[in-house]
Amino acid sequence: MKRHRVVIVGGGFGGLAAAKALRPADVEVTLVDRQAHHLFQPLLYQVATGVLSQGSIAPPLRDVLRHQRNVEVVLAEVDGVDLERRSVDCRLLDRAWSLPYDSLIVAAGSAQSYFGRDEFGLHAPGMKTVDDALEVRGRIFGAFELAELEEDPVRRAALLTFVVVGAGPTGVEMAGQIAELSRHSLRSNFRRIDTAAARIVLVDGMPRILPSFDERLARRAAAKLERMGVEIRTASLVTGMDEESVELRSAAGEVERLPALTKVWSAGVQASLLGRDLAAQAGVEPTRAGRVPVLADCTLPGHPEVFVIGDLMELGGLPGLAEVAIQSGRHAATAIRRRLDGDAEPRPFRYRDLGSLAAVSRYYAIGERRGVRIWGAAGWLVWLVVHLMFLTGFKNRVSALFQWMISFFGRSRPERTITAQQVFARTAREPA
Amino acid sequence: MKRHRVVIVGGGFGGLAAAKALRPADVEVTLVDRQAHHLFQPLLYQVATGVLSQGSIAPPLRDVLRHQRNVEVVLAEVDGVDLERRSVDCRLLDRAWSLPYDSLIVAAGSAQSYFGRDEFGLHAPGMKTVDDALEVRGRIFGAFELAELEEDPVRRAALLTFVVVGAGPTGVEMAGQIAELSRHSLRSNFRRIDTAAARIVLVDGMPRILPSFDERLARRAAAKLERMGVEIRTASLVTGMDEESVELRSAAGEVERLPALTKVWSAGVQASLLGRDLAAQAGVEPTRAGRVPVLADCTLPGHPEVFVIGDLMELGGLPGLAEVAIQSGRHAATAIRRRLDGDAEPRPFRYRDLGSLAAVSRYYAIGERRGVRIWGAAGWLVWLVVHLMFLTGFKNRVSALFQWMISFFGRSRPERTITAQQVFARTAREPA
Repeated sequence: MKRHRVVIVGGGFGGLAAAKALRPADVEVTLVDRQAHHLFQPLLYQVATGVLSQGSIAPPLRDVLRHQRNVEVVLAEVDGVDLERRSVDCRLLDRAWSLPYDSLIVAAGSAQSYFGRDEFGLHAPGMKTVDDALEVRGRIFGAFELAELEEDPVRRAALLTFVVVGAGPTGVEMAGQIAELSRHSLRSNFRRIDTAAARIVLVDGMPRILPSFDERLARRAAAKLERMGVEIRTASLVTGMDEESVELRSAAGEVERLPALTKVWSAGVQASLLGRDLAAQAGVEPTRAGRVPVLADCTLPGHPEVFVIGDLMELGGLPGLAEVAIQSGRHAATAIRRRLDGDAEPRPFRYRDLGSLAAVSRYYAIGERRGVRIWGAAGWLVWLVVHLMFLTGFKNRVSALFQWMISFFGRSRPERTITAQQVFARTAREPA
Repeated sequence: MKRHRVVIVGGGFGGLAAAKALRPADVEVTLVDRQAHHLFQPLLYQVATGVLSQGSIAPPLRDVLRHQRNVEVVLAEVDGVDLERRSVDCRLLDRAWSLPYDSLIVAAGSAQSYFGRDEFGLHAPGMKTVDDALEVRGRIFGAFELAELEEDPVRRAALLTFVVVGAGPTGVEMAGQIAELSRHSLRSNFRRIDTAAARIVLVDGMPRILPSFDERLARRAAAKLERMGVEIRTASLVTGMDEESVELRSAAGEVERLPALTKVWSAGVQASLLGRDLAAQAGVEPTRAGRVPVLADCTLPGHPEVFVIGDLMELGGLPGLAEVAIQSGRHAATAIRRRLDGDAEPRPFRYRDLGSLAAVSRYYAIGERRGVRIWGAAGWLVWLVVHLMFLTGFKNRVSALFQWMISFFGRSRPERTITAQQVFARTAREPA
């Protein structure tokens, strides 16, 4: 008898957790991703700021799953799903093929969203992929290089202005790291500019930073950022952007043009387009961010064989967090195993909130879990332990720990290399 | 009184050694390089094969020299030198300026040479820069990814054929690493292909590999490579190349077309074009490889204030080795210091041969020094210690040691991440 075929679309937190949870099952798993690697996205800002190498947070999916014989990893773009014929349309370079499934787990995640202003992507790379992080790394360190040689003080100031759009955890961590770099790590490196004079502006349309955190914690984080020299512009919208500047509009309607060569975008996400396709076929209405409403057991209405999990799933307003993706991925895997054992009764997905953390600077993080708040050095220790625990694979853990030792104790940045292409081309990039 | 201005062109082994040796001198040093980093080129093949991160071997020049207050690092292309006016023409993006000097050390090194067939560069990246190494990394690991999905056995075999052109140390080390990858590290990762079936072909026009080494050592290295499954084609010239194949011509005149998607070029070097410009101004004839004949003290004939060192210098047939560059850089720095102390008598540069090493595989290297030969595990231990000693900066040493532990003991590759751009664009690259 042919074995039950499970196709998983996406090798992020959700897809990888599902694949691993299917290890003991008598199934054939095919994990499809457009990237060859899993990505530990919460630490991507550290690749962008020279703390970590890309290898430490982006292990090849097939290496992570090498000992799990019932999984095959396929590198391909997924163009669509045919719910009727139960197949997934794959494409790689000039080849296209379809993958039949008995059960499908769609964990295609989300991409950066520029809220309809995709042209901003040319000037402000997002923070969702390894490509993004290496691009941002080249822009940040390249800006200091160019500033060192700039004679015009106005242009030099623009080169030393860094605007981070979006004050969620990634934006806060990014702004904190740029402040660390400019105030400490890079100071001894330059002769003409004072890197500590760099201006770091953290912009968000909401009235406060870190809206998903407790307000008192967010206030502590904001105070810490300001002590580090980060300017916080909340209740401010980005209304325009070009190569050399950013246009901000405050809640009061005042418009300001901020000269700034380097911009980073961490403001919004948009669910994978696959979501709209699935929703249309299942006859449900996707949310504005493109998420797919699912039943309580994470399945698509009318399609108990299709699970939509993680960032792509709309279920009781659960946020787009790694932990939601991991738990919903495991939930889908368990449901499949249970069905194969003859128990087809749907069980609702229950999310267990493990809390959240954000690292503002070295030795300073905030965290909360079920009403318990933590901050400062204690928060940072928790942050360190949790991130080491969740990093995939023993060698990545040791590798990250070592690179952190250099960065945190030595205040140095072990991974600052930028390529010649980045320095000399410095061309505007196509938005993702 | 104005301080004596020393301009150093190039931050490779020679330029960096010269800058460091000028530390105690009462001079103003400006080190110009088109890259922001120094590059430990002998380990570049390990970045290409996933052993090391680029940060481990390419520390920013300004970070290496941060505590040396008499040095300024400038990121710029050098377009030319005006020996008459004693100035160096610099350019960065849309700016151009000239740097006046009292003493000049030209350490511009060499680039890959395709022996007049620059179009080969599209298909066979060289191994001279970080860009090269990341490009080759993307091609090697990408080839295995594509082979896994290829249904046509002929094309699959072409995807699993790797041709390394040039059997000097870099070519030998590269071929050995690809063999290690395919025979060991990657085997458990793939489900459809047997990576161990990959064909690795090492091509050289000379009658034997490693021509700079003792013949008996080279024979041992060749035997080791063959045991690892590398095909050695000596006395074979590359006469043609396209996206999918390489054309070889044997000494007997037989022509063979080898289907191979992945090609790496480590066959020849060409001295920086700056050499021809300097030679023309000084009225000397550059060598065929573009090197500049210098006087016994490494100065340009008629220009005692201009030192030409390292790969760019032609002096008694000294080879293009890191050690020659380092020692000639120090020689130039010492000469400048001595002159400032009133001793203008030129002293000849004497190269002290410290021997050479090449790592064929993990636990196997060959080495020789003043007639003493070493090979196998003993050679590999010497290789390990020497490379750790020479890696620049304590943190890079520890970082490399750690990544080596993962690679050598675990046979794993910690830095295999390739970018989406590399997988999906896979466009032919402009030759450097």
